[in-house]
Amino acid sequence: MSDKMINDEALDIIFREARTRNGWEDRPVTETLMQAVYDLMKWGPTSANCCPARFVFVTTPEGKKRLEPHLSEGNRAKTMAAPCCVIIGYDLEFHEYLPKLFPHTDAKSWFEGKQELIRATAFRNGTLQGAYFIIAARALGLDCGPMSGFDNEGVDREFFAGTKIKSNFLCNIGYGTEENLFPRSPRFAFDEVCKIV
Amino acid sequence: MSDKMINDEALDIIFREARTRNGWEDRPVTETLMQAVYDLMKWGPTSANCCPARFVFVTTPEGKKRLEPHLSEGNRAKTMAAPCCVIIGYDLEFHEYLPKLFPHTDAKSWFEGKQELIRATAFRNGTLQGAYFIIAARALGLDCGPMSGFDNEGVDREFFAGTKIKSNFLCNIGYGTEENLFPRSPRFAFDEVCKIV
Repeated sequence: MSDKMINDEALDIIFREARTRNGWEDRPVTETLMQAVYDLMKWGPTSANCCPARFVFVTTPEGKKRLEPHLSEGNRAKTMAAPCCVIIGYDLEFHEYLPKLFPHTDAKSWFEGKQELIRATAFRNGTLQGAYFIIAARALGLDCGPMSGFDNEGVDREFFAGTKIKSNFLCNIGYGTEENLFPRSPRFAFDEVCKIV
Repeated sequence: MSDKMINDEALDIIFREARTRNGWEDRPVTETLMQAVYDLMKWGPTSANCCPARFVFVTTPEGKKRLEPHLSEGNRAKTMAAPCCVIIGYDLEFHEYLPKLFPHTDAKSWFEGKQELIRATAFRNGTLQGAYFIIAARALGLDCGPMSGFDNEGVDREFFAGTKIKSNFLCNIGYGTEENLFPRSPRFAFDEVCKIV
């Protein structure tokens, strides 16, 4: 490949100037944009192309009401005020779809009956896809407010009953305001968390 | 925020045209570039800014030799041929650093003594950071070859002895060739894995 890099403005938008938002403009996220985010993030790599992530875009007052009781106190008001809260889950039956997603070999048989491998693979790759989702949303002009403060079992009962899908984390999306914006927290320096051997 | 989106070429580079590479040009990844990738991906959001990911850039013949026996058969030759293989791990003692990383509240106390919460938080957020790493590497002109086919415990003994860091996945980085490039595998359509409620 040709070591093309993306421009400086794009680096700012997806990483350097993007901030986790707690306040939201009163402005909807269109269905077209939800689909565009998915159609971008879906290209991110997963192990054996297993694509275990599943998404519920909660946008209606009815949907919000079903979500509300399962949110931790600190996440409730801001999530109710966001135009859309995405429940990002992972499917513990992802391997059933491998004949379609990874057609050149029998990858389904790598997982059948191996519950711990299924669980770790679904959680790892579903989480990678959750990060791709955040970056794709930012790339298309949205702000994100990802959260893990909620009752996973409650959300699973309410939104994923009768399936083997488990909630992973939530992500408010929309157009953020400065309301309750934290000052940017520090990060580790390279040498504190990286080694070259 | 201003719903700025990134340009079409950047979308291609980080998502639409990027491919998992199995063959590599004989061309090193400079230390400067490794640091630039880290200094970009570090801005990606984690829960309470916990930043549990840890990175070992394996570039030397000696480092490669330590890694080799722990790789699955299918990942061995291509990893030995890559200019750099990054071991992406997560630190089960991440909460010790929260007074530094999340200074405005006592977030350390949320985790102390809660092994299952520590494990899930480290794995989830360390994996999000692994995805940010992949995207940041692509954004700066590198190709990636992420893999989970290796002996995690063997890698932990060899590279993380005496710590509570656990390996998550590996990612070859460098300048990819067309060698053993798979045809692009299919992805789910929006309606197959997304719902709007």
